[in-house]
Amino acid sequence: MFKTKQFFDHSEVEFSKSIKYERIIKEQKDGVSGYYDLPISQDGLMEQIKNYKNEHMDFLYSCESIVVVGIGGSSLGSKAIHNALKYKKRTKKLVFLESSDPLKINMELEKIDLKKSIFIVISKSGSTIETISLFKYILFLHGATSPKEINEKLIFITDKGSALDSLGTENGVKTFTIDKNVGGRFSVLSAVGLVPLALAGYDVKTILDGAKELYNDFIINKIDKHQLLKKASFYATNYEKISNNVLFSYSSLLKDFNAWYVQLWGESLGKVDKNGKRKGLTPIGIIGPVDQHSFLQLIMEGPRDKSVTFIKITDFHDEIKIPNISLKGLESLDFVNNESFETLINKQCDATMESLKSVGVPVDLIEFDGLDEKNIGYIIYYFELLTSLVGAGFDINTYDQPGVELGKKILREKFNGAK
Amino acid sequence: MFKTKQFFDHSEVEFSKSIKYERIIKEQKDGVSGYYDLPISQDGLMEQIKNYKNEHMDFLYSCESIVVVGIGGSSLGSKAIHNALKYKKRTKKLVFLESSDPLKINMELEKIDLKKSIFIVISKSGSTIETISLFKYILFLHGATSPKEINEKLIFITDKGSALDSLGTENGVKTFTIDKNVGGRFSVLSAVGLVPLALAGYDVKTILDGAKELYNDFIINKIDKHQLLKKASFYATNYEKISNNVLFSYSSLLKDFNAWYVQLWGESLGKVDKNGKRKGLTPIGIIGPVDQHSFLQLIMEGPRDKSVTFIKITDFHDEIKIPNISLKGLESLDFVNNESFETLINKQCDATMESLKSVGVPVDLIEFDGLDEKNIGYIIYYFELLTSLVGAGFDINTYDQPGVELGKKILREKFNGAK
Repeated sequence: MFKTKQFFDHSEVEFSKSIKYERIIKEQKDGVSGYYDLPISQDGLMEQIKNYKNEHMDFLYSCESIVVVGIGGSSLGSKAIHNALKYKKRTKKLVFLESSDPLKINMELEKIDLKKSIFIVISKSGSTIETISLFKYILFLHGATSPKEINEKLIFITDKGSALDSLGTENGVKTFTIDKNVGGRFSVLSAVGLVPLALAGYDVKTILDGAKELYNDFIINKIDKHQLLKKASFYATNYEKISNNVLFSYSSLLKDFNAWYVQLWGESLGKVDKNGKRKGLTPIGIIGPVDQHSFLQLIMEGPRDKSVTFIKITDFHDEIKIPNISLKGLESLDFVNNESFETLINKQCDATMESLKSVGVPVDLIEFDGLDEKNIGYIIYYFELLTSLVGAGFDINTYDQPGVELGKKILREKFNGAK
Repeated sequence: MFKTKQFFDHSEVEFSKSIKYERIIKEQKDGVSGYYDLPISQDGLMEQIKNYKNEHMDFLYSCESIVVVGIGGSSLGSKAIHNALKYKKRTKKLVFLESSDPLKINMELEKIDLKKSIFIVISKSGSTIETISLFKYILFLHGATSPKEINEKLIFITDKGSALDSLGTENGVKTFTIDKNVGGRFSVLSAVGLVPLALAGYDVKTILDGAKELYNDFIINKIDKHQLLKKASFYATNYEKISNNVLFSYSSLLKDFNAWYVQLWGESLGKVDKNGKRKGLTPIGIIGPVDQHSFLQLIMEGPRDKSVTFIKITDFHDEIKIPNISLKGLESLDFVNNESFETLINKQCDATMESLKSVGVPVDLIEFDGLDEKNIGYIIYYFELLTSLVGAGFDINTYDQPGVELGKKILREKFNGAK
């Protein structure tokens, strides 16, 4: 069960400016981005993962931790899914080495036993400075100077034909490749996201099935059940006035999902368009009800520059309740006694949504019946499609990120680096 | 060592519109907000904490976890400090029960042994629905129906004279009170932040000393060493054009500090002003270098509606290095070999700052020599003062949050609640 409702005033969207369905279908058919077909093209990968598991059964059995060495699009997707689902699964530990922050590196490494860990080095380009530096540090901790010495404990995931791909092949490291046209932030349903999740113990096939359901509706049968076109048209038309899109997720377990959304939305849509005009929408991820006590005041009374999308989990599959205890002086709070926390958080979601609607903030709602593989796959594909649609409306290249190159160049100069 | 640099074009700030120092001094003197004097007024609290520790020495010794039951301003401050400092301290476990999310509640409670935990219930008003509901659940888990039954394991922190204050007194629960004019989001240097931190094992006196250093300069000696007035004037003058203030913190350990900043800034400044005009600045917290791979593209090439404040830790007091290993095909990344990760992350900070400056984004820098109690106290007070100054420039009430009341009212109606 995955349902959506929009409460926008669509009358402001001129028909002539609305986003054309055909544009997306053309992108998919022409392979402008390879993410579109991931829900139906990963059978080969599933087979590869199965074979890898069979061949390494003994080591995998004794292995306690899966360590993802990767940053940005190489880690945000698997992290989002892991943290949304780990509450119910007895999986292996998933640890993420992302940053060049030395204190954070130490803290993450303290969580694992080197001997009982697999290290998955993920870099689309194959030459991400943080990732390769961390990988060298991992080699050093093993007393190794070449990947060959510990190749049984390594996996590489990278673009077909990258330097990392060659390095893996030459050193006997199991290497999964992704297609060049699958961008980092759109890669969660490729080997980038699925290999770590599968090794940690998640049912990745069902994640793909969730995405496939929407793929079949939207791409194959051309049914826009969730009015993605209308929503994208509303955002693209109003981007100067409504410049911030808040994702208000009513579960603390979706914090990293919010972070995945922030990268997808920010990095895809913040672009100079074909006429040289700066486009972009600022993504903001917040958590309910916690951020009712932090960010809500600004949305209610601050400048009217925000839309808000609520995510509501209709069924947490948990029954813990607020006990029927009355505290002297606090009897006015007894109206939630005997109710489940699930009821409380969901009514908080409804109440906040109503209060924002009542003051004219553009609001929409996504609801689904539980944090599970299927729903997570579905919502990931939902946001990917929405991003592509707004990008089409903006007339930009949704899939590159030219703005981050300057900083990399300056960094190299600061080290008086070669080339 | 705490240094700042601003790279704004201040010529745009008209002198007549610049924020008056006197306004703040008047707020402090009149007690409009009680936070101003916290750095010098907590001797009594220090004494109370000391006495509490002495009286409960045996239980504290055997106690493993300090559980903060509180949301928003009641938890964000202590969480920010704890997560910035825990890397070096062998403290007791600090666990936060904030949300009504049932899955999150279960996950947090799995971390603790009920028998070996102290529960600190924090609510300024004394009647926060999430907090009191969670407290009832804690009573239930202990098989209790009244605070009296487990009063040795409880601490309350609340406004003087609130219902929670009375409840504590009547049931023999150690209760710390805060002054009514210390708002939740400005309360980290009061009992709200300091009691949990002190019991967990942090040197809270030095946190206060850090804040006191800036207090003495700014409030007592009226020296504006960090050009807070200029910075606040720049923000307040340009709020319609530059509507988002990004805090780009170059350490993963500052993630919760960012969250504290987001509440402080968003909830204080998102207000209708005295002429009925909507004011506000949208706070965004990101982490370097991780979010160079997520949010940076949007700042570089998207609409010019953002300022960026960098936080740089000049000394991580850690020496781990990128080993001198050269990988075939990846030799172009060897320019960081033999360098420390500290050098890498700090040069990444410099490089990103330069790239943003070069395209005309308003940038400033805060740098200090290590994550420790003193620097954290200082930077907290820095951001509190800055918030008050922008609020003065906006001609709003910086210290209330009227916009969140409507949602609470609707929630009550949804339960068909009493009163």
